[in-house]
Order: sequence, then structure tokens, then C-alpha cells
Amino acid sequence: MSFVEKLLQASQKNNSLLCVGLDPDPELMPPVKLVDFLPEIIEVTSDLVCAYKPNLAFYEALGLEGLAVLKEVLEHIPAEIPIIADAKRGDIGNSSRKYAQALFDRFGFDAVTVSPYLGEDSLRPFIDYADKGVFILCYTSNPGASDFQTFGEQFPLFELVARKAKGWNTHENVGLVVGATQIEGLKRVRELCPEMPLLIPGVGAQQGDLGSAVRYGGEKAIISSSRQILYASRDSDFASAARREALRLRDEMNRIRYGDKGW
Amino acid sequence: MSFVEKLLQASQKNNSLLCVGLDPDPELMPPVKLVDFLPEIIEVTSDLVCAYKPNLAFYEALGLEGLAVLKEVLEHIPAEIPIIADAKRGDIGNSSRKYAQALFDRFGFDAVTVSPYLGEDSLRPFIDYADKGVFILCYTSNPGASDFQTFGEQFPLFELVARKAKGWNTHENVGLVVGATQIEGLKRVRELCPEMPLLIPGVGAQQGDLGSAVRYGGEKAIISSSRQILYASRDSDFASAARREALRLRDEMNRIRYGDKGW
Repeated sequence: MSFVEKLLQASQKNNSLLCVGLDPDPELMPPVKLVDFLPEIIEVTSDLVCAYKPNLAFYEALGLEGLAVLKEVLEHIPAEIPIIADAKRGDIGNSSRKYAQALFDRFGFDAVTVSPYLGEDSLRPFIDYADKGVFILCYTSNPGASDFQTFGEQFPLFELVARKAKGWNTHENVGLVVGATQIEGLKRVRELCPEMPLLIPGVGAQQGDLGSAVRYGGEKAIISSSRQILYASRDSDFASAARREALRLRDEMNRIRYGDKGW
Repeated sequence: MSFVEKLLQASQKNNSLLCVGLDPDPELMPPVKLVDFLPEIIEVTSDLVCAYKPNLAFYEALGLEGLAVLKEVLEHIPAEIPIIADAKRGDIGNSSRKYAQALFDRFGFDAVTVSPYLGEDSLRPFIDYADKGVFILCYTSNPGASDFQTFGEQFPLFELVARKAKGWNTHENVGLVVGATQIEGLKRVRELCPEMPLLIPGVGAQQGDLGSAVRYGGEKAIISSSRQILYASRDSDFASAARREALRLRDEMNRIRYGDKGW
């Protein structure tokens, strides 16, 4: 099964565009063991999401032990829910091939985020895994997005990334990352690439616009929230608080999708 | 001691601009155990280099075991030689802080390569480690460099990266990555940023121009070669072959630096 098929099945089954970011941060965590924290989060949210997205930075910061925890966490995710490695990798072809092996073959992720700066040969080794998803950073949610991504006179760099990504999408496994804080950018990218899945972070702590995320994302939107759900409570009721917040976000997205037509 | 001081001391002591990339590739390796391979390479080259540069992709591709090997390999490098993590990381500030912790605090690297696509807040957590070096991808050695890095009408994106990097360099710990295959680019970047260390890959397997690398790199050049040295022989004489190749490269650079004036 291709990544997009797996995504759409999970999205339909759980009636959800919500992706939960699994980013363990010791500074924010409730009083629970790291190995127990994320499995509990997964248990109470796995009927509410279309995907999970661990950001590798949070595991690498914990050393080798952190990466062992990541392996364990992945085993707790139900097989039918796609898992996106938020890794933002990108290197010359020879090295990108190794990153693709690490993320797809070793960890078994269903999809990955990659950075486009080094161009086609840096992305090709990921895209060549035809059944895996590859989300190319396009117009990101952070303040620094305006340093380079909007550079250009006739059209901005992020549009060039979207156009090229479209050309590279012969296996229909390429998607784009566009932040929910970039409302005009979301609209423009969706015009350029009507068929692609969009991974849309930035709706929670970064205060992006959920309405635009849903409207321009469409049925292939993956709207991601991490801190807002994981750390909804930093006390022993963290799991029920996380579920409540995930449910609220999923339902809020669905209200925008369906209006009040009895979803 | 700052990264640049450490670099210049090693470079002067070994009279060398050569950086050896420590990239273990099972498909190319001689018949020796992985844990023994790189320590032997280090032993026979540590008097010939200004820095070592492990590319994390090659270790991650070997799973958790590969990262344990990386930790061991780092312990074999003499304390006075700087070690650059070729990681090409870059994420929103919150996540980049975690990558910086992983690479600087956990692994103890002296410097790191980062990707600029996400802009200033994605690089700041690395740069804030004032004693560590941060090499920002600018104009890379691979064919895909022309996909985005030369985009722009009045001046190309890689020039914008160089200009901004210069502005962010308040701790004098920022450098740029420019491939030896980009002769005009090297010249231009050196004009824009006369003070910055340049990490210059691409002289070996990628057939970059060593003369331009030395000329435009100057005394703060770090000219990197991986495969050409590591896999100079794929037989049991790999260590002596690697030393011979490293010596040849170092001396060839020095002939360009000093002419025939008896270096």
C-alpha cells in the first residue's frame, strides 16, 4: 500500500486530519517515565488521528537512550496509522541514501520530512522509495521563513520549491510542508499543487490559522500539533487532558470541514 | 578556546588544510571490523589533518549500533584536533535547540554543518554555543546545487545566505560550506566574507578544483575529502594506502599555498 493510501484510510477511519507530534521534552513532561509517557499518549489518541509525527531532534537530544526509546514508541503505534519522521534531512545523494536507509529501513517510518536546499539529487534517494511519503519543506511556520523562503523577485523561493516538487512527483509520494501561519502561502501552494498531501504544522503553540489549514489543506491535509496536546496537563492527568485536547482539535477541524451538517 | 582558534592551531601544527571525512560505508569498506576501521584511519592520519568530519548519515544508516560506533570513534581522535559533525540539521528554533544539545552536549562535537532553509531562528540555537563552530550550507558541491542555490535575478540565493551569515556572526563562530566544484561561487563567497572559515568538500570523488579551494579558502580553509582517502585501498593495506593518499593531498595543497618555497 502506498503512503497516500495508508494516510487516506487512517484519515477516513478516524474521521480526522489531526497528526499528533510525538516530541518528548524533559522540561515540559509530566511526572512519568519517558518510556511510559508517549505510549500512554498514543493509547488515548490513536482513534483520533490520521498520523503520528515524532521529531527526531527530541530523541537525539536524549542520546542513544533516546533513540532506543523512539524504537519502543514506534512499536506502540497501531499498524494502520502512518508515522512521519520529522527529520528535515537533506545531503548530497550519496549521504541522503544513507539517511533514507536509516529512516525507512532501520526505523520503518512511513514518511519523512526533508529540506530542499541541496536540490534534486539530495531528495531523490528518499523519493525513490515509491511506497514511502516524502514531505519537502516549502514555506515553514517559523519567523525565519522570511529569511530565504520568500526570496525572489518574480516569485518567491517557496513557489519554486513547490513547482519543482510537482515535477519530481512521478511516484505520487511527494508532499509539502507549509505552516498554518502562512495563510497566503497555503493558498498559493494549494493552487500550484492541488493533488499533493500537505503537512501543516503551527496550529497550536505557534498560533497558526486552523481555518486556512483545513480550507486549503483539503482531504490530503495533515494538520499537526505537538506541545498543545502532549503537555495539555503537566500533572498525572496528562493522558486524559491530551485526549480531551486532541478530540477538541479534531472536532474543531471537522466543524470547519463539514459545517454543522451532522458529522 | 574558540572553535576557530582550535582549528588554526591544528592547521598550523600539522601544516595542513586537509579534513578527513569519517564516513563508514559497508559497501566500500576493506575486510576489517567497523569498530577497528576508523580508529586505524585516525591513527595514520592524525598528524596530517586540520580537522575530522564524520557525516552522521553513515552512522545512522547502521542503526543504534552505528551511533555507538560513532561515540567510540570520536574517542580515538586526539583532543587538539577539531571534529565537525556533518549533520546538515535545521529545524524551527525549539527543535534546533534539541539538535544542538544532541551534537554539542551529548556527542561533544566542536562544530556542525547546518542547512539554512528555515532561516535565522533555526540556526541561532547552534550559533549561541559561542565556542562551537557552525558551518551553514551556502553553495554545495552536488549537481542539485543549481536547483535552488542559484535562484534569484539580481543575485543568487547562495549570496543571500553568505550575506545573512555574515550578519549573524557576532560570536565569530560561523562558517560557510562551499563546494570545490563551484569555482566562481568560492571566489564570490570569499569576497563577501573574507574572515569566515570555509568548509570545502568535493575535491575527491566529486572532482572539484583543488587550486581554487586553496586560493579562495585561504588560511581558514577546511578542505574535505572522504572516500578518496578512506577507500584508497579496499584490501588489508587500507591504512597505509589512506595515509599515502592523505599525505599526497595535504602536500598538493601546500604546494599550491607556498609554491616551491621549501614548505
